[in-house]
Amino acid sequence: MRVVQQPERDQFDLAAVLYALSDPTRLELVRRLAQDGERACGTFDVCATKATLSHHFKVLREAGLIHTRAEGVYRFISLRRRDLDARFPGLLKAVLKAAGAPGR
Amino acid sequence: MRVVQQPERDQFDLAAVLYALSDPTRLELVRRLAQDGERACGTFDVCATKATLSHHFKVLREAGLIHTRAEGVYRFISLRRRDLDARFPGLLKAVLKAAGAPGR
Repeated sequence: MRVVQQPERDQFDLAAVLYALSDPTRLELVRRLAQDGERACGTFDVCATKATLSHHFKVLREAGLIHTRAEGVYRFISLRRRDLDARFPGLLKAVLKAAGAPGR
Repeated sequence: MRVVQQPERDQFDLAAVLYALSDPTRLELVRRLAQDGERACGTFDVCATKATLSHHFKVLREAGLIHTRAEGVYRFISLRRRDLDARFPGLLKAVLKAAGAPGR
């Protein structure tokens, strides 16, 4: 099992997190992850090419919003809710509420 | 007195609001407005040229984060806290808290 590089909780940058959330597709990805929990990489039914989707996941991962776990050829993505809530209390909840997702 | 064009509350777009907040200088401007209330345009002591500052205010204004009021040659800027809280409850509070500003 290989873990893709991602920032530690104390390396999160608020502006980078807000930027990662400032795109409608990335917001939708985060909304679905909040709703469904960990998902395999290819199961996100959004209107974007594979390359665009990879880019969006990279922006989200580098900002600290998501965790990518690799198992063989498969990648599983989850929201770093606990880390985000610890660093920026209330932020993810407010964004998800504004994006029309159910709360916790 | 002239009022600069800005979106109505129901025209706010979440992604645009998050984008407007995703720049360190704009975050600092919002933090100061939250702290001090309405301020004259030239009184923001931040590291940016006048043109850059104008651009930042434009992004913030078009997203619905700030209100610009003109009186003669002076412009006064305030945070649209009530409108933002109504549209995206908890969002501004969480962002300000994360940015190190006092709450309400």
